[in-house]
Formats: sequence, structure tokens, C-alpha cells
Amino acid sequence: MSHELFSDRIFLGSELPVIQAPMAGVQGSDLVIAVCKAGGIGSLPCAMLNSEQIKSELTKIRSATRNPYNVNFFCHQAPDFDQEKERRWHSVLAPWFKQYNINSQDILPGSGRQPFSHQIADMVEPFKPAIVSFHFGLPESSLLARVKSWGSIVLSSATTVDEALWLEANGVDGIIAQGLEAGGHRGMFLSDDLTSQIGTFSLLPQIVKSVRVPVIAAGGIGDSAGLKAALTLGATAIQMGTAFLLCDEANTSLLHRAALKGKGASHSAITNVFSGRPARSIVNKAVREIGPLNNEVQSFPLAAVAMTELRKKAEAQGSSDFSPLWCGQNVGGCREVSARVLIEAIFEDELMAID
Amino acid sequence: MSHELFSDRIFLGSELPVIQAPMAGVQGSDLVIAVCKAGGIGSLPCAMLNSEQIKSELTKIRSATRNPYNVNFFCHQAPDFDQEKERRWHSVLAPWFKQYNINSQDILPGSGRQPFSHQIADMVEPFKPAIVSFHFGLPESSLLARVKSWGSIVLSSATTVDEALWLEANGVDGIIAQGLEAGGHRGMFLSDDLTSQIGTFSLLPQIVKSVRVPVIAAGGIGDSAGLKAALTLGATAIQMGTAFLLCDEANTSLLHRAALKGKGASHSAITNVFSGRPARSIVNKAVREIGPLNNEVQSFPLAAVAMTELRKKAEAQGSSDFSPLWCGQNVGGCREVSARVLIEAIFEDELMAID
Repeated sequence: MSHELFSDRIFLGSELPVIQAPMAGVQGSDLVIAVCKAGGIGSLPCAMLNSEQIKSELTKIRSATRNPYNVNFFCHQAPDFDQEKERRWHSVLAPWFKQYNINSQDILPGSGRQPFSHQIADMVEPFKPAIVSFHFGLPESSLLARVKSWGSIVLSSATTVDEALWLEANGVDGIIAQGLEAGGHRGMFLSDDLTSQIGTFSLLPQIVKSVRVPVIAAGGIGDSAGLKAALTLGATAIQMGTAFLLCDEANTSLLHRAALKGKGASHSAITNVFSGRPARSIVNKAVREIGPLNNEVQSFPLAAVAMTELRKKAEAQGSSDFSPLWCGQNVGGCREVSARVLIEAIFEDELMAID
Repeated sequence: MSHELFSDRIFLGSELPVIQAPMAGVQGSDLVIAVCKAGGIGSLPCAMLNSEQIKSELTKIRSATRNPYNVNFFCHQAPDFDQEKERRWHSVLAPWFKQYNINSQDILPGSGRQPFSHQIADMVEPFKPAIVSFHFGLPESSLLARVKSWGSIVLSSATTVDEALWLEANGVDGIIAQGLEAGGHRGMFLSDDLTSQIGTFSLLPQIVKSVRVPVIAAGGIGDSAGLKAALTLGATAIQMGTAFLLCDEANTSLLHRAALKGKGASHSAITNVFSGRPARSIVNKAVREIGPLNNEVQSFPLAAVAMTELRKKAEAQGSSDFSPLWCGQNVGGCREVSARVLIEAIFEDELMAID
């Protein structure tokens, strides 16, 4: 595979220049398959799957479509477990533990999200996915070389021009310019200073000017006008996440769907309370009262372990007070339809207009 | 004047759908005149001018051009002077006062920036400017009615959909959708929660969908692609500020110009340290060490008084460490040319392609 795949209206081998953003926890192979069949590129988020689950999902995708798809991994450094940090984090959460009768001693240490590894690569290799995308930079060089040896196109997210330059220098085939409007985890990896984060309208043209590889626009895009505006600003393709959250084939929970359809969906914030890393969620009780940014938060991804206990209890009572309600700053593109209908509406009268 | 002026490629009576953003402290009538003569709408920022200065500037503009221009006012509530807040703010600044040999007792209370008032209206009324724009909401209803009685078109900035709806309900003729990429003061007035602030790419289409009045896009726009993208997202016109900062006719200081041309210009932050209200500036020593957001800051606009003392001392030594280096998140459009050359380059091959 080579860069020619990005040109001439054929984007990475798909008909339409759109990637469905990988969204761990709210979608699996069903959405990937539906997007691929509609002519876009579906993405399987693997950060919260174990090797067997990854194999099972990839098998389903391969048996359902021959179109190219994307497999996405986090590539953070797994932290050492720090008992003192854990104690401080539990202490922050103590009032709500009490409210939900959770004994913090009963919470077993867990990892939450797995970084990409050779063990996972063993499972993925036989599938030789057309595209592999990473979040939080890139895996170490031998792992990256291994992915490239399969012929997979490698993408990763940049939230600043510096990150885009770093990714290009380290061998990516394309860069996802993640504007700060985007829902879910910020892909930032060279800085943890949130003031470095830039809106899509400003970030996209600056990255386009700075690198030679194709740039995929992400953050705030959900309709045909957004598609056209992103291409006008120099994007080769778009990545959309939030717009797919209400689709039939997404696994978005009923509570999450209700939040997305509610008035509160217009107010999201970048928060570290759900995982330990900054991510954009609708502002709920957890974001408001524990965050949005808590200095005592346990390291990513360990913070999620205790939060998940609260989430389970709250959700059992029909409340999304402690659920990570991932969402971008523009829910205008969300529709309760199939992924095919959503994609076709966006590209309907646009394909001809794009040069 | 009526809304018809917004239609048929005639924007508020000007040839080109571009407003030069009012930028108090870095530009006066020279830039207004140059922009008007080039076919755009120049804006005179009046927040830091007294009545006589306003009269003098408006007289210059009127004698130089018959094209429509915009006069801009802040319409904050002037705060009561709080001695205890002042003491706390001076205490925050004490280390730098010491460094620059400033005796905080010598700092005279001042106001810094004036809100629009009947006294100012008396001075402006004879000029009957085609457009009057406000920042931080709208003035009280009798003042607003007075401005409208002159025949002036009234614009104001919205940073959220709620603010856009409020402005429309309160009688504006057009709304400036100020995305969080924009430089200078955030126009926010219904909330002081910075998580409510939205990127241009997301804010613009949501405001366009929510109101009937024309929407002017601001934040991150600096070239012809930005213009086209903004119009694609539903804007009637664009407002550009940062792109004009290096123009010959701007009064931008040499230190500010140097900062805009430097590598550091790619890192700005929303900070309250310069005035007491959140505003986007290049990250310098003051933003880094006192801010970006300081909880002990004196009320807007009083915080500027003490900061101005530090600024004067630092600037006298050739340093912009304490200067408000207003700047948006995209300096890609800045050029050291006349405003005419800047504007013509943006519209050169675009005017025919629009619509």
C-alpha cells in the first residue's frame, strides 16, 4: 500500500473520504461493518478489548466486508501502580463511595485500558488490516515497524503542529488533526498543557501547511457543510465520531443516548476524572463536582477503575451521573438512523462538488 | 438601514463581507480607514479611548472615507472598587513589583476601560456610524434604543448558542460568533465558565441554525480558505483580527510584532491576568507565572491598572514579559503588508467563487 491510495477520490481504498472515529466503550464491529458497507472507513477501537475479543471482532468484520477498515490502539506507557496516588484518589471519591455504599477496600486494582503490545500484534497480524491508527503518539519503533511490515497504513492523532511534525518524522502515513472540539480522549502526547490545544478551524490549516502527509480533520464535523469546510481548509478526509453515537449500530448506552439528545449535550468539558487523561465529555455530576480537572486524579488509565465502580452503581439506579458521556462540541450531526443513512446524507450532493 | 444590506453580496454597505475586528490598544483610525478604503469594514475600538479621543478618531475616519465603518464598545458593568481585592491582587504581583522597584502604594486606582454610556453616546451620535458593535452583551435598553435611533446596525459577540439566542431576543441585527480560537477578550456574558467556550468549527454552524439574523464568523480565520470555509459553515461574513496585527496601519508595538513573528506565537492561552476577564494572549512570563487563570485577580477592568505598571517597566527594558500579547490561535494569516494588500489577497480569487 502506498500514498497513492490517498489520491483521486479514493481515500485509503474506500469510496468516501470519511473515517468513523474509534470510540472505545460505545461501539464494536457492528458499526465498523455498517460504515465500511456504506463506503466509509469503519474503525475498531481496541483499547478496552483483550486479545480474544479483538480476534473475535476482527473475524466478524472480515467475514462481513472486504472493504478497508481501521484498527485503533492506545499507545500510552502503562503506569506503575502507585498505592499513595490510589489512596489520594479514593479520598477524593470518598463522599460518593459513601453515598453508594462502596467500600474502597473492595476495589481491586485493574488496568482499564491496554496499550498496544507485541502480544496484541500477534493477534492482529493475521488480519493485516488496511489501516492501523494510534492515539497518544506511536508505539515503540520495533512495534511500529512490525505493523508497517504487514502493509498497514499507519495513522495517528496530532493536537498541535509540534505533534504533527513529530508524527511525520516518526513515520506515519497520515495525520489526524484532532481539534479541541473533538469528543473523547485528547490525543496529546508531547505536552500535558491544555492551553496547547487548538480549535479545528485553526489547527487543521496549520498542520496542513506543516507536513507533507495527508491530513484528516477531526473535531466538530458532522454534516455536509462540515465536510466541505474541512476539505476547503486542506483536509484530505474527515474523521467523525460524535455524529455516529446515536446510530443504530453503535453500542451507545440508553443513558448516554438520552444525554446526547438532551439540552445538556451542548455543554461538554475536557475532564480527567474518568480515566486520568483529558477527554471531552458532556458535563454531568462527576465532571462538575470532581472535575473537570482534578489534580489528585490517579494516573491514566488507572483512575477509571474506581470511577467504574461509581458508574455501575449510578447506572443501576438509572443515572448517568458518573458515566463518561463522551461527546464533541457539536451534536448537530447526531441522527438516530443507520450509519449508511447518516453517511449518504453527508455525501449525497457533495461528492460531485469536491474537486 | 435594514437587513437587506446583508444580502446580495453587499454586506452592510461594504463591498466585501469582512469586518476588521476592533482591537483596543493596537489600532486606531489608520487601520479603520485603510480597511474601509480596501472595501472591508474597519472597526474603531473605543474601550480605551475617552470621549475627546473618540471624537477625534471619528472625525479622522469621516474625513477620509465615506464607506461604512464600525464603532465598537465594551458594555460591562463597571465594578465598585474593592480595597481588599486590590490588596490581594497586589500581593499576587508583589514579587514582580519588587523586581521592578514598584511601590504598590504609588499605584493610583484607575478604571482602565470604559463601558458605553450616554456621555459617550453624546459624542458618537453626530457621526451616526453605519455599524455599532458591542462586546460583553448589550448596553441597557435605553442606550441600545438610542444607538438604534441613529439608524446604526447593531452587532454583538456570542460565544455560545445561548448567548446568540439572548442577543437576538434583545434586538441585535447581526451576531458575531466568536470561536475560542479568537484573540483578545472573550465576549462571554451569560456565563463565566470557560468550559462553555466552543471552537469556531462547532460554534458557527450551531449559531447559524439557532438564529435568523446574519452570523459573522470570528476566530482562526486569516486567509481565503478560512473565508470560504466560514461561508460554507453558514456565515454571512467574517471578522478577522489577528491577521491585521502586522499590517502597516496597525499600531501594534514592536515588541508585540516581534512576539507575533516568533515561534512562541503558536502557543496562546486564555488568561485573566491582564484585565481581570478571560482573553487570549500569547503565553509570556505573565501568563505563565501569574496565570493563565488567577483566582485572586482584581475585577475587570481594574486588574489592568497594576499590570500596566509592570508592563511599562518591562517594556522600557525591551521586554514583553508583562505585555498583553493579544493573538488568536492561528497566526498563519499575519502579513507585514498594507491592509489593502492583505484583504485583496484573501478575496482575489474568491469573490467569484462565493455563492
